[in-house]
This record gives sequence, structure tokens and C-alpha cells, in this order.
Amino acid sequence: VDGNEEARQVLLGIVARLREGWNRHDAQAFAAPFAEDADFTNVFGIVAKGRKQVETAHAAIFRTIFKDSCWTKTDTAVRFLRPDVAVLDIRWELEGSSGPWEGASGTRFGLMNLIVTREGANWAIAVFHNQDVPAPEQAKRFADLWKQ
Amino acid sequence: VDGNEEARQVLLGIVARLREGWNRHDAQAFAAPFAEDADFTNVFGIVAKGRKQVETAHAAIFRTIFKDSCWTKTDTAVRFLRPDVAVLDIRWELEGSSGPWEGASGTRFGLMNLIVTREGANWAIAVFHNQDVPAPEQAKRFADLWKQ
Repeated sequence: VDGNEEARQVLLGIVARLREGWNRHDAQAFAAPFAEDADFTNVFGIVAKGRKQVETAHAAIFRTIFKDSCWTKTDTAVRFLRPDVAVLDIRWELEGSSGPWEGASGTRFGLMNLIVTREGANWAIAVFHNQDVPAPEQAKRFADLWKQ
Repeated sequence: VDGNEEARQVLLGIVARLREGWNRHDAQAFAAPFAEDADFTNVFGIVAKGRKQVETAHAAIFRTIFKDSCWTKTDTAVRFLRPDVAVLDIRWELEGSSGPWEGASGTRFGLMNLIVTREGANWAIAVFHNQDVPAPEQAKRFADLWKQ
């Protein structure tokens, strides 16, 4: 399914709003692009149900371990499964965390997967998963596992 | 969107086929429920494009690090975003890996997220992401980060 360019720009705008909300450590702004009944799962498999819980959870971590963090890089791939259902894979880099583990202040690499749906005129994040991934120089070694 | 019970059973059947394929270390069986143009991303963020690459990648790891592995537990949540678009969160446990890291032979915990679509009469996995998650006793500590 090909999405039109207008929808693609709306989706990239959602990614930009997530990043701006994160980098202002503004939980309400970060949560705003989520649907009211969104399913949010973080890198530890912990689940928040709905926009309000996404906001509350991020208000806590923006005051603590991510207080000085900066989401520094974004590389987004968009795939339309339906004209009104899109999947986004967002490769991210983060600097300046103070947790949840020792040494988290260095560069963290990860992948957010978003399923974004259009209900009426409005696109919103229906399902979100986040995962840590290895640094690119380590990822090579894991990719080689598939070649043996 | 409510899916009908028949579709739900088909989707749970796909999960059962993945697990059976894994536990027979049969890459062709594991890959069969994927769409020909599926996007597959493993726990390291490494990508396979299409059913054939999913099969080839798994043929390699079923001969090596997962040769004696067993997918022991499955807990699946199904959500229909559209009558023909479903999202599955599969909590899994795995035993008996011999890699990719030291100590991998103990219980591994993870979460597969599948986007499964119906094209005509046939449901197939369009998008797959896998992530490791902490053991339940450790996850509690991470969940508390949202409560500070």
C-alpha cells in the first residue's frame, strides 16, 4: 500500500513532536501524539495503557534518570500497511541518561516501533514498542550469526 | 475494533506454528507464517527482509546457538486495529541457548510484537520485532522508575 506524501509528512511530524517533547523533558508534549487508548511498551517490556499513563510515566523519568538526557539522532522508516495504518521504525540515539544502570550517560542506541492509525482526519500512535539495540560496531557481530 | 473469534483463533494458530517451527529447529516451518515481503527485526535490531531471508537467517541459528533451545512459555495478547490488521504481543521464555553471550543457556525472557494482516483470505505476518526483557523479578525495579 502506498501512502500519500501528505500522510508521510504528518507521520514524520509525529516523530518530530516526540523528540521535541523528550528534549524539553515535557511529558505532556511527549504523550500528545498518542491515542487516548494507546498501548505503550518500553525497553523493559513495561506497559502503559493510554495517553494519560504515558504522560504520567514520562513525567517521572523526565524528573529523574532522563532529566539531562538528549535524543540526538533519528532515522525513521515509514511503511503503509493500509492507507490509514502505518508502521514506523525509528532508530534513535540518546545521550546523558543518569540511569537506570551505571554508565548509562554514554550513547544509547535503540529502535522505536510505532503503529500509527488515522481515525477520521487524525493520525495518532495506537501501539508503541521501544527496544535497546547494540552500538553499530557490535551489531555487526550479531548480524554474522545469520551467516554461519 | 473487535475481531471475530474465528480470526483470533487463526492468529493464535500462527503463534503456535512459530513455536512449533522453533522447537523443531525447522527454519522453513518457522518462516512459513510470514508474508513474502515481511519486515523482520530481531532483538539486536538486525533486519531480514521477506520470508526467504527469515528462513535463511533461522536456518543458520537453528544449526548453531539455538540448536538445543526450547521456546517453553507463551503468553499472547491480540488487539485488532482493523478487521484485517491485528497486533500481537507475545511474551516468551526460552531455555537452552548456547549463545550469543556467555550464560545464555538459562531462561531468557522476551517480547515479540507482530503485525499480522489479512490479504484476501490469508493472514500473514507483515511486521515482526523481537526484544529481550528482564526477568519478572527484575522488571519490578524498572517499573518503579515510573512511580518516582
